[in-house]
Amino acid sequence: MNTDKQSFAPPRGMRDFLPAETALRDWATSIILLAYEQFGFTRIETSILENINRLRKSEGGENLALMFEVLKRGDKLDKEISVIPVTRESLTDLGLRFDLTIPLIRFYAVNQSVLPNPFKSIQIGYSWRAETPQPQLGRFRQFTQCDIDIIGVKSEIAEMELLQATAEALLGLGIKQFTFRINDRRILAALAKSCGFTPDTFDKVFTVVDKLDKIGLSGIESELSTIANSASATAKLINIFALVQAAGNNLENIRQVLQPDLNVEEAFQSLANVIKAISQQSEGNYAIRFDPSLVRGMGYYTGQIFEIEYPGYPFSLGGGGRYDQMVGKFIGREVAACGFSIGFERIMMILSERGFEPPQRDRVAIIFDANQDDYAAVLDAAQRIRSSGVTATLLPRRKDMRKQLHQLVSQGYKSYVVFKQGDQQPEIKDLKLTSEVNA
Amino acid sequence: MNTDKQSFAPPRGMRDFLPAETALRDWATSIILLAYEQFGFTRIETSILENINRLRKSEGGENLALMFEVLKRGDKLDKEISVIPVTRESLTDLGLRFDLTIPLIRFYAVNQSVLPNPFKSIQIGYSWRAETPQPQLGRFRQFTQCDIDIIGVKSEIAEMELLQATAEALLGLGIKQFTFRINDRRILAALAKSCGFTPDTFDKVFTVVDKLDKIGLSGIESELSTIANSASATAKLINIFALVQAAGNNLENIRQVLQPDLNVEEAFQSLANVIKAISQQSEGNYAIRFDPSLVRGMGYYTGQIFEIEYPGYPFSLGGGGRYDQMVGKFIGREVAACGFSIGFERIMMILSERGFEPPQRDRVAIIFDANQDDYAAVLDAAQRIRSSGVTATLLPRRKDMRKQLHQLVSQGYKSYVVFKQGDQQPEIKDLKLTSEVNA
Repeated sequence: MNTDKQSFAPPRGMRDFLPAETALRDWATSIILLAYEQFGFTRIETSILENINRLRKSEGGENLALMFEVLKRGDKLDKEISVIPVTRESLTDLGLRFDLTIPLIRFYAVNQSVLPNPFKSIQIGYSWRAETPQPQLGRFRQFTQCDIDIIGVKSEIAEMELLQATAEALLGLGIKQFTFRINDRRILAALAKSCGFTPDTFDKVFTVVDKLDKIGLSGIESELSTIANSASATAKLINIFALVQAAGNNLENIRQVLQPDLNVEEAFQSLANVIKAISQQSEGNYAIRFDPSLVRGMGYYTGQIFEIEYPGYPFSLGGGGRYDQMVGKFIGREVAACGFSIGFERIMMILSERGFEPPQRDRVAIIFDANQDDYAAVLDAAQRIRSSGVTATLLPRRKDMRKQLHQLVSQGYKSYVVFKQGDQQPEIKDLKLTSEVNA
Repeated sequence: MNTDKQSFAPPRGMRDFLPAETALRDWATSIILLAYEQFGFTRIETSILENINRLRKSEGGENLALMFEVLKRGDKLDKEISVIPVTRESLTDLGLRFDLTIPLIRFYAVNQSVLPNPFKSIQIGYSWRAETPQPQLGRFRQFTQCDIDIIGVKSEIAEMELLQATAEALLGLGIKQFTFRINDRRILAALAKSCGFTPDTFDKVFTVVDKLDKIGLSGIESELSTIANSASATAKLINIFALVQAAGNNLENIRQVLQPDLNVEEAFQSLANVIKAISQQSEGNYAIRFDPSLVRGMGYYTGQIFEIEYPGYPFSLGGGGRYDQMVGKFIGREVAACGFSIGFERIMMILSERGFEPPQRDRVAIIFDANQDDYAAVLDAAQRIRSSGVTATLLPRRKDMRKQLHQLVSQGYKSYVVFKQGDQQPEIKDLKLTSEVNA
């Protein structure tokens, strides 16, 4: 390993992006934006730093332990470090956002009177979490998320729009045959309750159930057994999931299995509506399936939840759900809300692995002699080429022009001009042809 | 003042952006990018967090005192706060970047072997400085900069390209009749030396000279007198600036005035070349003038420096210069470099004050009955409209539809559809006409 290179690398889990990587990211961003805008979403930007207490008091779950916190400054800091013992919490006043949802709700709280109702937002931006970087899983400490949210729509047409807009964005990126997994937190809660788990254990139960794909029924059974007084509840839950699996996760079958014990008819009907509408819109390009074991980590979800499964990849490409109570906790008035977040870094990973290259503008290299040519005339020649909408870049001629031309080819240039003083109609030469001749 | 609103506001000096503000920012970014790309610059992204020691050891000047520093985490932090007394410096391991230049040089140091030579980069991104926010001067704690840099070109054709590309970007934004002020650090240094200032006082002398516009010759004279043993040097410098002012800042006249004492013929010739070439390219849309009092704060400049002056505004719209030694300090091999940075927040301020609105896509609102309509059919109707490239957004019908339509007009919608089940060819109505009818 090159230690020089190492020492100049960005901090752990942070990243720089080369021109080709940035071009890919910018292209993908523009495709995602276009798709979302066609659905009437509008982009907003929220502050990257938040007050540390707002973040600490949020329902950020395990992300709270992963925050990057910003040191107080000046006299305030002097005061805090003169106290013995110094406490961690007293040292910081700001934190880097760890998601785009908390900033969105704060944004909505400030601006609700001037925002349209419903408010359909797009956010594309960085978040930060101090977790172990796993590049092979598209996991970094600095990562881009693409979020869309609909604030102010109670009915499941909001979920439909989120799913459809997200699907259109992915299709626009050339990602097809993904599957939306969908579930409803109300069904999960009713299921746990009907089995006899107490509400204080629900979160723990859900966390275990979420692993069904990975550890199977027996794995779940053993993990659930660690929850106090849960033997009979666990047996019931495992029994239901066995029936559910046998029924092939078909919503209607599951509905039959669960219904005798559950008062969640509205949740089932709404799920059925969404699955029907999205299946119809997909035209076979993607799928949607009910998955009663889907949980999603965040505590704030109140209704439908979703995730994107993609064949060949061990992670979801995104997820989201309904969080009808979160806005109310900020502004004291209940406002329906749901959102969907695309894991941009994972999308980038897939596109990179495919060797996908975004379309490029035509570019002409103008090679001149830095020691002899009149620079004003060189600028003139370049500007004439640019006036036709083509990129023109100036390059001082190097001793080995053949090598220079080869490098231009590798940078994606297709043509070049050798500047000649007084030449009003410089010949634009085909770089490929020339480099072949010179090869 | 609404205290609720206040409590949800972003932290001091940080900002959120509403949909219309974000649309303006995105439009301006795209115009600037397009201009720069036409000159062969390519966009890169650099990490937002840098190792704190890299920032501390940099030539960041007064910005070092304005850093937002990130607290260490876990055991490392526990160790630092258990020491008595706790020192500020020991508490942090990362910092938010305060400019885009240090990250660029670090980026170049890592990636030089795979970057084109010369390397022409664009960076558009946030930086942070913990200074007093002054919104009326476009000064915030979180702010966007648009930087272009050329690494690897020694001749002043690099300066010409930076100036011309920046000018094209501003013209694209509708900002005209600005003036580039230009000077050369070598002239400043030779001037100070010829007057008899000692090299260790140069930075202080330059800082004072920079204020010529604001405090005049007498102001400068009194401030220079505080520099030790400077009486005779100050008298000489004031004398030269008096002559220079009398000569109307004309480069040739100034050259005559300074030349007897100076060995900076190359700097003068290079300045003359740049001024001639840029004047020629400007076609009267903007100007460039030599300003021997221009200094620029950063210590790392080695050659030409520039700033953009704009009538009616008390601040520069951007600036930059040549920094031929900075890359060398990182990688141990001298590499020529120069850059130009547009102050994006100030540009936004000017465009907002003009009430400028960027072009918008056509948008159709589809109003449906959330209680009765078949959502799948509603999605279908919207998707049919979208297939023609138009934005279609779904809106649950409100009781007061007239009010709803008025709100759509204020959001920039021009047309709408009232969804009817089974209607395969829904009528797209003109919103303006309707709202007038309803008014």
